Formats: sequence, structure tokens, C-alpha cells
Amino acid sequence: MAQKKMWGGRFAQDTAKSVEDYTRSVDFDRRLYAEDILGSKAHARMLARQGIIAGHEAEALVRGLDQVRAEIESGAFKWRPELEDVHMNIEARLTEIVGPVGGKLHTARSRNDQVALDMRLHVAARLDDWARGLKALVAVLVELSKGREETVMPGLTHLQPAQPVSLAHHLLAYAWMLKRDCERVGQALVRVRVSPLGAAALAGTTFDLDPESAARELGFAGVFKNSLDAVSDRDFVIEAVFCACLAMSHLSRLCEEIVLWANPCFGFVRLPDAFATGSSIMPQKRNPDVCELMRGRTARVYGGLMALLALVKGLPLAYNRDLQEDKEPFFATDDILAPSLAIMVEMLPGLEFFPRAMARAAEQGYLNATELADYLAARGLPFREAHHAAGRAVALAEGRGQGLADLGLDELKAICPLVEGDVFEVLSLSAALRRRTSPGGTGPDSAARQARELLDWLGRDG
Amino acid sequence: MAQKKMWGGRFAQDTAKSVEDYTRSVDFDRRLYAEDILGSKAHARMLARQGIIAGHEAEALVRGLDQVRAEIESGAFKWRPELEDVHMNIEARLTEIVGPVGGKLHTARSRNDQVALDMRLHVAARLDDWARGLKALVAVLVELSKGREETVMPGLTHLQPAQPVSLAHHLLAYAWMLKRDCERVGQALVRVRVSPLGAAALAGTTFDLDPESAARELGFAGVFKNSLDAVSDRDFVIEAVFCACLAMSHLSRLCEEIVLWANPCFGFVRLPDAFATGSSIMPQKRNPDVCELMRGRTARVYGGLMALLALVKGLPLAYNRDLQEDKEPFFATDDILAPSLAIMVEMLPGLEFFPRAMARAAEQGYLNATELADYLAARGLPFREAHHAAGRAVALAEGRGQGLADLGLDELKAICPLVEGDVFEVLSLSAALRRRTSPGGTGPDSAARQARELLDWLGRDG
Amino acid sequence: MAQKKMWGGRFAQDTAKSVEDYTRSVDFDRRLYAEDILGSKAHARMLARQGIIAGHEAEALVRGLDQVRAEIESGAFKWRPELEDVHMNIEARLTEIVGPVGGKLHTARSRNDQVALDMRLHVAARLDDWARGLKALVAVLVELSKGREETVMPGLTHLQPAQPVSLAHHLLAYAWMLKRDCERVGQALVRVRVSPLGAAALAGTTFDLDPESAARELGFAGVFKNSLDAVSDRDFVIEAVFCACLAMSHLSRLCEEIVLWANPCFGFVRLPDAFATGSSIMPQKRNPDVCELMRGRTARVYGGLMALLALVKGLPLAYNRDLQEDKEPFFATDDILAPSLAIMVEMLPGLEFFPRAMARAAEQGYLNATELADYLAARGLPFREAHHAAGRAVALAEGRGQGLADLGLDELKAICPLVEGDVFEVLSLSAALRRRTSPGGTGPDSAARQARELLDWLGRDG
Amino acid sequence: MAQKKMWGGRFAQDTAKSVEDYTRSVDFDRRLYAEDILGSKAHARMLARQGIIAGHEAEALVRGLDQVRAEIESGAFKWRPELEDVHMNIEARLTEIVGPVGGKLHTARSRNDQVALDMRLHVAARLDDWARGLKALVAVLVELSKGREETVMPGLTHLQPAQPVSLAHHLLAYAWMLKRDCERVGQALVRVRVSPLGAAALAGTTFDLDPESAARELGFAGVFKNSLDAVSDRDFVIEAVFCACLAMSHLSRLCEEIVLWANPCFGFVRLPDAFATGSSIMPQKRNPDVCELMRGRTARVYGGLMALLALVKGLPLAYNRDLQEDKEPFFATDDILAPSLAIMVEMLPGLEFFPRAMARAAEQGYLNATELADYLAARGLPFREAHHAAGRAVALAEGRGQGLADLGLDELKAICPLVEGDVFEVLSLSAALRRRTSPGGTGPDSAARQARELLDWLGRDG
Repeated sequence: MAQKKMWGGRFAQDTAKSVEDYTRSVDFDRRLYAEDILGSKAHARMLARQGIIAGHEAEALVRGLDQVRAEIESGAFKWRPELEDVHMNIEARLTEIVGPVGGKLHTARSRNDQVALDMRLHVAARLDDWARGLKALVAVLVELSKGREETVMPGLTHLQPAQPVSLAHHLLAYAWMLKRDCERVGQALVRVRVSPLGAAALAGTTFDLDPESAARELGFAGVFKNSLDAVSDRDFVIEAVFCACLAMSHLSRLCEEIVLWANPCFGFVRLPDAFATGSSIMPQKRNPDVCELMRGRTARVYGGLMALLALVKGLPLAYNRDLQEDKEPFFATDDILAPSLAIMVEMLPGLEFFPRAMARAAEQGYLNATELADYLAARGLPFREAHHAAGRAVALAEGRGQGLADLGLDELKAICPLVEGDVFEVLSLSAALRRRTSPGGTGPDSAARQARELLDWLGRDG
Repeated sequence: MAQKKMWGGRFAQDTAKSVEDYTRSVDFDRRLYAEDILGSKAHARMLARQGIIAGHEAEALVRGLDQVRAEIESGAFKWRPELEDVHMNIEARLTEIVGPVGGKLHTARSRNDQVALDMRLHVAARLDDWARGLKALVAVLVELSKGREETVMPGLTHLQPAQPVSLAHHLLAYAWMLKRDCERVGQALVRVRVSPLGAAALAGTTFDLDPESAARELGFAGVFKNSLDAVSDRDFVIEAVFCACLAMSHLSRLCEEIVLWANPCFGFVRLPDAFATGSSIMPQKRNPDVCELMRGRTARVYGGLMALLALVKGLPLAYNRDLQEDKEPFFATDDILAPSLAIMVEMLPGLEFFPRAMARAAEQGYLNATELADYLAARGLPFREAHHAAGRAVALAEGRGQGLADLGLDELKAICPLVEGDVFEVLSLSAALRRRTSPGGTGPDSAARQARELLDWLGRDG
Repeated sequence: MAQKKMWGGRFAQDTAKSVEDYTRSVDFDRRLYAEDILGSKAHARMLARQGIIAGHEAEALVRGLDQVRAEIESGAFKWRPELEDVHMNIEARLTEIVGPVGGKLHTARSRNDQVALDMRLHVAARLDDWARGLKALVAVLVELSKGREETVMPGLTHLQPAQPVSLAHHLLAYAWMLKRDCERVGQALVRVRVSPLGAAALAGTTFDLDPESAARELGFAGVFKNSLDAVSDRDFVIEAVFCACLAMSHLSRLCEEIVLWANPCFGFVRLPDAFATGSSIMPQKRNPDVCELMRGRTARVYGGLMALLALVKGLPLAYNRDLQEDKEPFFATDDILAPSLAIMVEMLPGLEFFPRAMARAAEQGYLNATELADYLAARGLPFREAHHAAGRAVALAEGRGQGLADLGLDELKAICPLVEGDVFEVLSLSAALRRRTSPGGTGPDSAARQARELLDWLGRDG
Repeated sequence: MAQKKMWGGRFAQDTAKSVEDYTRSVDFDRRLYAEDILGSKAHARMLARQGIIAGHEAEALVRGLDQVRAEIESGAFKWRPELEDVHMNIEARLTEIVGPVGGKLHTARSRNDQVALDMRLHVAARLDDWARGLKALVAVLVELSKGREETVMPGLTHLQPAQPVSLAHHLLAYAWMLKRDCERVGQALVRVRVSPLGAAALAGTTFDLDPESAARELGFAGVFKNSLDAVSDRDFVIEAVFCACLAMSHLSRLCEEIVLWANPCFGFVRLPDAFATGSSIMPQKRNPDVCELMRGRTARVYGGLMALLALVKGLPLAYNRDLQEDKEPFFATDDILAPSLAIMVEMLPGLEFFPRAMARAAEQGYLNATELADYLAARGLPFREAHHAAGRAVALAEGRGQGLADLGLDELKAICPLVEGDVFEVLSLSAALRRRTSPGGTGPDSAARQARELLDWLGRDG
């Protein structure tokens, strides 16, 4: 009914039921209750400090808001869909508790700056949590890398065996990606932590506000400079979701690899029982569902980003109701990224790696063909001919289903007379790995150095 | 606990709690309960017809399934999150009701073909509903166009006044867009209505099934041809969401126009009280929130499409758990499109149009400048010079804040001596509108013809 | 210079150079030259038939347009960037050739309906070509399937071995996807083939046009009903790009599989030399670059769809210059899809499949574990216990790196006394394959039936 | 022919022509020629410093590379499509110039680290340019704001008149958005400026490289830590395109507003002749094409981001050929953002604003209704009743097509007896604007303060 609406006075007709249903947000924005209450308390105190309301009024409001929060957290609070959103639900209950003074809370404030405030507080808290999750995962990867600096596996390009790399080096590649994610999240946070409180509907107010002091109380790093921008800006949500997109893309790559490695043709890894699922029909099954879902959910986080960007394209200033639609994509992103990081932290340490299978695949992939060519080149054969000779050796071994090191010395000599008995040292993949000593390369020292550097960063930053 | 899992026998460790949380779908896929039960009943009957289970067993299963459905619809059903998904929840309760025979329902079936079946039944039902909603909206637009075939408004290109068009013609433009949407939905439906039941896990079964008869019972138009495709195909979901994207894009355009027209600078339209919202602070406000939200939600439907396409890119055959992520984007799309169509049907008839404001804007936009140029050209002036002369007349009138028809005959003559007194008939926008008689143009007959043709289509198809 | 512009008369200042650069489209829309000329010829003839221009004028225009086309195709035509777009370039040259009558071509037409016409003719031609490409690829898949109806490979779900399938069945899964793509393209075509010619700028014209006859001459299936819709509709471009998205998603899945299969751990397939690339450093390399690029380009086609949808969101009627941006996404899509289909048609027949490697992987994957469980269940063991027994057998064989069929009869009996000597027939994967006779399943008859049905469709439709 | 390929030795068949066409990148990656040559020079010098090649060899290579660059820039260079990409084209010509020593350039390098290096150098240069463009635009907005701190315009929410704001405040809102863009670009740059040179194919090399010194020479801020990450990371491209997405979204909002304001119903602004386009048919037209195209191209930048994210989803390590597809989306983004910023800088100063039209619209929008309500509340009326009274006054004035200030004192008194003669000061929009003195609000001092702060930032940072 129109009577219910605070703004209904001039309207002859009640709001249509379908409109109430279509516009209602309390089903999802109640998630912001804690931030809404926090923000209101800071606003009440600021009003009192500025003499706009009395000190005892601010105290009554703060106490009332604390009670509302307690009711919500105990489950006693009754959410009323007809009150549209989280803000109206809380304010209505507050007024029941504290009486008419409840109405003073909205002085010099509008839902436009209020909802922007709530989202900024919420996104900031979530980004903090994401950063923690990212660091925990980096720590797990570093831990996993230890002792695996000489575990040879086939390094792939084009998904074809290319050169031997260590499992440690491979795992640490992900740590560096996640470290970048963490940096991005940290920089986004600074832009999130700018208080919009005091922008009011769009133009500021005629009251003598002190937005700085409210912002400080709420832990913000700064305060809005332009009220139109303050109420219409959703860059901070979009940037947060973008950070999540890149982080999920990294997780999706790792998941893809675990799925591949768990296939028996690879057989590089076995998922712990607690993280695999079976089949009610097929007794042999150990499915990597968690990895598949994480890969799939990456797509949904992408979709959220696309939604947000399309949302703000071409929107005139200042607030438009379209902006209400920033919430569900952000919440969905958070519901995907945070548990994905947590479950990775839990799952990775339980992975059982099979170095023998990795070594066999490395042999099978003729990863030492480059070594053979280099060996011949070092003995004076032009590299192009050395490349051809190594290619012929690969063809011979491949025909027999063997590795290069399984060929006889005489067979190798027949391909190229420059070969000597020391060739077999060169063909050892472990040796090949150890020789790759260039900075940032796959050599064992490099992996150890990377691990140290990452731990330093975790220690410094954590 | 592993003991709870049907497939747990070979697993030494229980499934981790985090894995259960991460993989669970019952929170959203319970929405498919009716389709799941429908599909199971058809499967049970088919098994009996083929002699795979006994007739009385099928009857027991069907009765049990009917009871499960009744329990769900009465609210008596207890959804158990630890049972993962809608299928297991229903099957577990069925087995409680009917005893061990419940286990026979899963004969020659797998969750892979079962979930594909459920989604196909569900999507088909929703597409049917969308088609109804689209048609209802076309009917409303046709109705609105009636009597407005000569209501002049400024036809815009580049958002600049271009030529006069009738409000009827403008409204009917949307009807043709929605008719295309309806056709697309109808064609997508044929591809949705292909039963995957009988594909089993991925390879068909060793049982002598009759997928055709089950498909017929479920109202499908066809049956899968290849079991691998049947369990891994989500094209039908993606195509449905794409249909929704285009339909929402059309609604977003109409919403954008209503938002513009409701701004007092335009003042072409007034929203009914029941469909506008006010402000608790600003007494003059009548906000078009419904239109803004619909425009914003269009972005979210787009995001859903992007998610689905990214989801299936590069997925190897056959079923992968990533595919579970098709549901939430589809449900979100449905939750947006269906109410958007419904609320438009409800809202549009209540719009109050202001022909005077439209006419004034048409004058202000010098929409008759082309008519003046044509008039001069018809009197023998080369068109280029006529164009210039008309341009000068516009400049003169604009300088005074007047329309072209407000200029004096002598003033017009001063610009071009070919002008005569009959020029004022030409400058009449209504006359200009009526002269645009080319097929599909803005002339009043054309609008009436369009309305008739659309009604024919609605009648034929409805 | 303003003087150059046809509309420049009223403008005091020249158009800025940066504006000319920013708005120019001739660099890419010249691709539409043939359609632009075709459309202009049909328009000229229609004008003559309606008595709006003289017959000899239409003939002069048509001859002039033919000459322009010849000049373009011989390379003699000089494209002039300052003339903005393909339409102005052609019209300017036409007027040089035919003199002042060239100016009459634009009677009762505007660039708004002209560009819509050109795009519709172009998109229609390309969709036709895509349909041919899709069918050619279906034909190749059918051909490849022949003789491979009993070639066992591991059917995967969750990328884990699930049940044996035939290579023929697997390949044919893609044929069905592509057939759906072809249907979608055909249905989109009907909506593309609607002529917008005669809508003029946005409102139709005062001339007595006959849009139907021009549409017929151009091979269109229908004609616009509403001029506002005709000039502002880009649904047909978006729908075409969507069809390409789904088709590319199918190709991306096949490419992903070829990339996997070509990895030596799988070793299921070898790319022909002509379709693999090597490494200048690593002699053993055979990289599947074509497949990787096709998978990657799928992402770009997706991006094009997203661009188009975001483009039209919230655009008010009628024509807005934003719509110029429909072209590059469509052209890029076409430049990806058409060659992708062609190169697949060329590459697939050259693939060398390795049935032995597939069979080995099938053994390794314990695809016969379900068969063993079914065998025990058929001998009266409750399925749950049979499932457990089969699981134990898998564990035993896995520990030794063997297949189930390598276990001794006594060993199997020790696990479950119900086992008899006939168990080994059951454990044969070929037999397992042959037993899956359900319609659409992986049995050899099903594959042969699918091939026949697809050939029928190709014959009927081609 | 296979003979042409450096890796062709082991291949019996030539590469198919279609494969060459499908995989070729030189048509677009030649854009990286300068960076490729820069990188090669640094690599050659590093090899010499490390004693891997001789000093005179490095000098010969550097001189040769300088000559290649000169040839490319003079147009003398002949790009050969059969040489696939920019790297091979340059290397082939280098070897023609310097002889066999040309082959030594590729020592301890691979195309995998080379192309990553080229892209990083290129993206870094472009981000620098974007930052300059963003700052130039901020400077223009600040300049435009000057002297307009008291120009009243209707501040809109929901596109409905809300409260009066100053034009200066409105324009400055965009400056703050662009400042954020600039910060994001600067932070992205630090992540771009990490050299991948020395990662080689994927695993580092056996040579004693000094990647740090090469990185320093190239102006990088850091060097890769993990070779697998170095060759497979495209985060930096994606992040750059994301920065462009947000920047374009801001431009699209400003463009939308200019398009609205230029419509005669608003009439707030007139585009300079040099930045508007006319119509060859409609003499009254002044179309804002630049703004429309910019809004439309925003969608294409979005599409590029979506393409890049979908591209990298689920890619296993390390280099995959899919990554070649990062280039065209980045180039297209750059071709849109850079000229968009430049043309805005050029166009905005030429906009003619119409304060009278803005003031009229502000009156029409009853922006002073809030003031009236506040006035009554200050005189003791409960706000809810004050809100109603103001609403009734709006209704009365609206009925007559007047502003609130046009009502008589007695009429206002009839609505609420608390009204006195001083009410008319309150109803003045200029006064309302001046009263909004809260920090960041629309008051004149706030705008001036914002301008100073932005200029400070520009000075400090520029």
C-alpha cells in the first residue's frame, strides 16, 4: 500500500504488487546488514559530534542499532519483504526500538550514499579475506615444492613434451600468479576504502557534516571528493570482480592440470579419497569433481564481470536504479572465489604425486632430444644437422616404443659418428634438469630460491 | 561419511565436509523436482513395458514418486543437503516409501542422462512460458497503438530529431522485435524437446531399452541419436539464454525510451502511480525504477550467456562436472525475463502519453525542415540549394526559439522567393506524417496494417 | 573541408580531421562493396518501375554501377578515405562515370536503410557458406567413422575412464552437434533475408515505392514491416554471431580432444605432417598449432558476441551511430569460423589413429569394472556387494600395473566365489562394446545407423 | 614447403598452405617490430657481456638490427607472409644483412620468451600513452569547470530531476573517475614491466645468462622469477585491457550525457561544427556521431576483455599457441581508447553550454521541492508533513506548467500557513546550490577545491 511508503504521500495509487516484487532487494542485500549497522552508527556519532543531533540521541541510536544486530544474529529478527531492502528493514526495526528518534538517523543521508557505503565496507572486508586466502595458497604451494626440486616431469608446450622441468618449479609457477593476484587485490582495496558517506542523494547537503571523521571511524583510507561520483561509482565492485576473474583463471589452469594428471594415461597424481568422488555404477572411478567445478565456476565469475561492465555502460549521472544489480554478481563471485581458495589449500597437501609416472612420460616424450642435439653441436656438428640427427634417433626409438637412452651406443653412432659413450650422461633427464641453471629456470637452486623469496614475501606482508 | 555415499565402498576416507559443501547442488537444483519426478515415472513405465522390471514394481515406483511430489508441494518434504542434489534427495525418500524396489528405478539410467532430461523438460516448460509472455506483450503494444496512428512524435536518429513518426508506429516497432524473439524461442524449443533418456552414463546400456516410448510419454518431439552427445550437450540451455538476451535487449531499449520520455524535458509520458516510486526526501520525484532495473538486469542475462559459453569451451567429451554450472545462469535468466515480460504487460497500458509535449518537441526539432526542402525542390530549386535554404530558415527560427511554422510568409520568401502561402500546409507535421505512405512507413494506414497483421499472427499462433 | 560534405551547407566550420579519422569506416566496410552495388542496382530498377526515375536513367545507373564493380575487382578503383564509407566511395565514383544522374540513385533511400541492406545481403551470403562448411565437416566425420565402429577407446566422464566406446561413436557425437549448428544457421538465415530497403532514414518516404519487388530481385524472403525497426535492428547480425559461437564451441571441444590425444601419454592420434608444426630447437616436437589456435579463436568469437549485445543494450530508436560497430565483430567472426571449418575438413582425414594405444588406455582405465560388477550381480550378488567386489579386483590389478583381464581365475574367485571361467569373455572390452546395443548407444549397429541417418540428411538438404 | 621451415627436417610432408594461412600472424604482429628489434639488441649485448657470443658479433647483430628497423620505417622492408610472424621476418632479413652470425641471435632464446618480451614492451609503451591521454582529459575537465561553479543544472537520479548541481561539479565528477583510471594504469604498468627474457622455451637454459642486465637495459622494473610463468603469463595484457574497459565505461557515460544534452528537449549543449555531422537529407541535423561511436566502441573493448579471459581459462602450462590470440584484442583496444581520449580532449573545450536551458530544466523539475520541505521542517512542521505539503505545492504548479517560485505567497500559505515571504529566497536554485556546502558537495567552494586538488595531482604526477 502507498501508505506504507515513506514517499507515498503524493501518490494516489498503491504501488503494484508486481512492482514490489520486481524491485525488492532484501532477499540478497540483507547480506550487508552488519555493514549497514556499522555505517549507521558512525553516521549517528558524526551527527552528534557536529551538533546536528544531540549526544543522547546518538547514543540511543547506537544502542538501538546494536540491538538490531543482535536480533539479526540470533535469528530473532523478522525480515519483512514489503520493506524492500536491508536499509528499510533495519531502520523500521530501529524505530520500533528507540521510538521517533529513529527517524533522525536519516538526517543528511540518503539511501544513495548509504548503499554505496555498505557495499564499500563489504567489498573491503571480502578483499581482505581473499588476500588471506591467496597467501595461504601460496604458502601451500611453497611447502609442496620442497623436496621436489629434482623431481623430473615433462615440461609441456602445446601440450607436447618439450623439456624436463621439476615438479617444484611447476608448482611454484602458480605461486607467482597468485602473488600477482594478491598485489592487485591490495591495490584495489585502497580504491574501495574511500567513504561515500556524506554525499547524500547526489549533491551533498546543507548540514555542516564532517565526512572525514566518519570515514576514519569506519577504517576508511580516504573520503569522496565529489558527491555525484560518490553515489554513482561502482568501479570498486567491478575492479574487485576483475581481480577474482584473474585469480579464478589461475585456479582453472591448475585444476585443468590436476584433471589431466589424474587421468590414468598421465597418472601423475592421485587425489586423496576425501577430495575425489566415485560412481554408483562404475567401481573404478575417482573423479576430480572439485577441480571440474572450480574450472566451471571460473566461467561464472567471468559472466559476473561482463554483467557489471555492461551494466554501467552509458549510464548518465548520478544514481540510477540499474546499480542495484551490482550486488548479485559480486556476491556470486565471492561465493565462488573464497571457498575455491580454501578448498585448494585443503586439497593440495593431500595430492599423491607419482614421480615414476612423470619420469616415464618424460622419457616417452623424448625430452632429451634437445640435449642430444646440443651434445652433437658441442662436438662441432652444425646445429641444423645436429637437430636432424637427433630427429632420426627419436624416430628410431619411437618405432620401438623406447626412450632415447634405450638405444645402443652403436645405433647412435650409426646415426652420427660423433657420438661417444658419454652421451648417456647427457641423455639423463635429471642431469638435463640440473644443467638448466639460468636464473628463474628449472634448475633445483632456482626452485629453492623462489621458495625462499616467496616465504620472505609472505612473512613481510602477512 | 563415506558410508553415506552409494559409491563409497572403495574409498578409505570420508568425503571432506568442504567437498560436500563445494559440490552440493540441491540448494538450487531442487527447482527441478517436478521434472525429475516426471522423468522418473516415464522411465519406470518404460522399464516395465520392456520387461526389465515388473509391472507392479513400476506401479509402486510411480505411486511412490507421486507421493514424494505431494510431500514436496505441501512443504512436508525434508531436503537433506548431505544428499547432494535433487535426484538423490528424491530417490532416497522414494526408497523410504517403497522399500528396496526404489533401487530399481536407477536401472539403465545414470545421473548423467537424468539431469540432462530434467533440464530439458524444465527449459522447455520455461520457453513455452516465455513465448506466452512475449505474445501477451505484442498484444499490449498492438492495443496501445490503436488510436495513436496520427499522434505525431519526433522520430529520432542519433537521438536528434529527424522526421515525424506516429506513436503507433513507434510502439509497433517493438512488437516486431518481440515477434522475432518469439520465433526464435519456438525454434529453440524444437531442439530442447529431444529426450536424452536412455543414454545412461555416456555409452547407452546393455538393456533392451525403448527411449522413443519414454520420450513420447514425456511430450518430447524426438530422441537422442548419440549417447555421448546426449549427456554432454548443453547447447539447448545456451540457446535458450541467448533467446532471452535478445528479448531483454529489446526490453532494455523500450525501458531506455520510457526513462527518457518520463524526464520532464521530454515529458512525453507519465508512469502510473502504481509503477513509479517516490523519494522520502524529494517530494517531486516519480522514478521509473522498474525500467531502470529491467535495463540493468539485461546486463545480468548477458553475463549468464557469457558464463555458459566460457563454460563449454574446450570441454572434452563426455560429461564433465563443469556442466553443473549451467543451472544457475539459466535460473537467473528465467527469474529476470519472465517477470520482466509480465510487468511490462501490466505497466504499459497504464502509461499516460502527452501528445502535446510530443508535438512541441517535434516542432522544436524542426522535423519539417526536410518537408520545406522538398517543397522548394518540387518548385524547381536544385535539392542542394533547397537544403541550404531550409537550413537558413531553421537557423532563423532557432534564433528566436520558434518553430518553422511560426515564421512569416514574407520571412520565408526572403529566404527563398519560390515560397508561397501553401507552404504552411507542408510545414504541418501531421500532414508530413500522413504523406509518408510507403509500405512499412509511418503513415497511419501502415500502422493499422501492421496491427492487423500482428493480430493475425497472434490469433494463428496463440 | 565542410565543402566536401553533402550536408555541410549549414555548418560554418570544417569537420575536424580527428573526427574524420574517428568516424571513418571505409577501411573495413569496403568489404561490402559487392552487396552495396547489388542493392543499388535493385533500387534503381525499382525506382524506374515505379516511374520515379526514367528507364534510361536506371539503365545508366546500372551500367555505371557495373563499371564501378569491375574497377574494384580489377584493383583500378581508388578508395578515398575522406569519403568516409563504402557507400559514399561508390556513389562518388558512379557520379563521375554517369554524371548528374548519379545523384538520383539516392532518391527515397538513406544510408540508414542502405547499410542495413548491405549487411543483410552480406550476412546471408556468409551464413550460406557456413552451412556448406558445416555440412562438409559432417560428411568428413561420417566418412571417418566408417570401419571404426568396433575400435574401442576409453569413454571418459570427468576425464576419467568410464566405459568403452567406439571411435566411430565418439566422432559421430560431433556430427550431431554440427548438424544442430547447421539448423540454427538455416533458421537465422530466414530472419536475415528480410529486406530493409524502402525504410529510408527511419520513417519511410513520400514516394510511391515498391519494396517487395526490390526485395524479390535481391533474393530476399520477405520485406520489413516497420521502418523504425528496419533501420535500427541488428538482431540478425547478433544471431549470426551466436550461431558461430556455438559452432566454434563444438570445434573447440574437438580440438581440445585432438590436443590431448596427440600427447604421447595418450598417443591416440598422430597429426599429418602437413598439419603439425615442429620446433627449431626441440627435434622431437609435433605441435598441434591449428587445434590450439582454433580453441583460442573460439574465445574471440565469444568476445564479438558480447560486444554486439552490449552495443545494442539500451539504445533508443531509431538509428544510432553506435550501430556502425556491428561490422568488425561480424567480419572477425567470419574470418575465424569459415577457415576453421575448411581446415578441419582438410585435416581430419589425415589423422592417424592408434587403436592399440586406445585399447591399452581402456585396459588401464579398468573400463570393464562395471562389466565385472554386472556379471556378479547377474549371478545373484546384490549390486552393492558386486560393486565392492569389482572395486577390490581393480585395486588388486592396479597395484600390479595390470588390467583386470590379467588377473588369474583363482584370484578373482578369491575375491568372489561366484566367478567362473566365462568371466574373461565379459572382461573383453570389445564384447562390452558390442553388448551396448541400446538405441543411440555405442554398439556398432548404432554407429552405422547414425552414419546412414546423417548421410540421408546431407543428401536431402545438400 | 617443409624446406623453408627451420624445424622441417623430420617432417616428410610440407606444411599445408591452409595451415600457413591459418597460423600466420605477421599481418598483425608486425606492429611489434620496434619492440622486437629493441629486445633483440638487448639480448645480443647480454650474450656478449656473458661471453656467449663475441663482442664483435654482438656489434654486427646490433648494426644489422638497426638497419632492419631503418628499412621497415622507410618502407623498404619486404614483409614475407610465408615467414609467419614478425620475429622470423626480422631474423631472416637480419641474416641476409649480417650473414651466418645472424643465427647466433637466437642462442638461449625461444620465440616463447621473445614474443612475451615484445608484448610487454609494447603494452608498457601504450599504457604510458594512455596515462598521458587520461591526464590531458582531466586537465580539460578542470579547465572547463572554471567559472561554472555557480551554473545551475538539474542534478538527476533515475534520470529524474533531483537536486540542483553546478555544471562544474558535474564535469569534475568525470575527472575523478579518470584519475582512478590513471592510477590503475600506473599500477598495471609495474606488473607489465617485468622482463621474461631468459625464460627461453619454458625451462630456462644451460647458458650462463644474466636476465637482470638485459631487463635493465630495456627499462624494465624487474625480471621473471619462474620461467614457466614467464612464457605462459598473459595477465598483463588482460589487466591492461581491463583498465581500458573501465576508462571507456567512463567515457561512455559522458558521451551518453552529451548525446542527451544535445537533444533539443534538453538543449543544454551544442557541439562545435567541427565535431558534429549533418544529414544530406535533413537540413536541421547536428548529430553527435563521435559520442555515439565512442559509446559503441566501449562495447567492443568489453568484448576484447571477455575474449582474453575465455582464452586463458583452463590452459595447462606452459606456452600454448592459443596465446597468439592475445594480440588482436589488445591492438583493437588500443586503437579505440587512445583516439577516444585524444578526440575528447579536442572536442570538450568547443562545447557551447546553455545555462538558461539548464536553469529552465531545473525549474521544470521542481528541484526546489526539497528546499520547500526543509523550509517548512525548519519552521517546526514534522518532516513527513512538510514533505506532503511540498508535494501538494508541486502538484499545483505542475498543473499550471509553472515552477514553484511562480506560485503566489497566498497560494503557498493556503497549502501551509507556516510559509512566509522569505520562502522565495529558499526557492531560488542558485541559493540552494550555494547552501550545499558540505565537503565534496555541489557548493561552489567545493568545485573550486576539487579543481585545485586535481591540478596539484596533475602537477605532481605529470
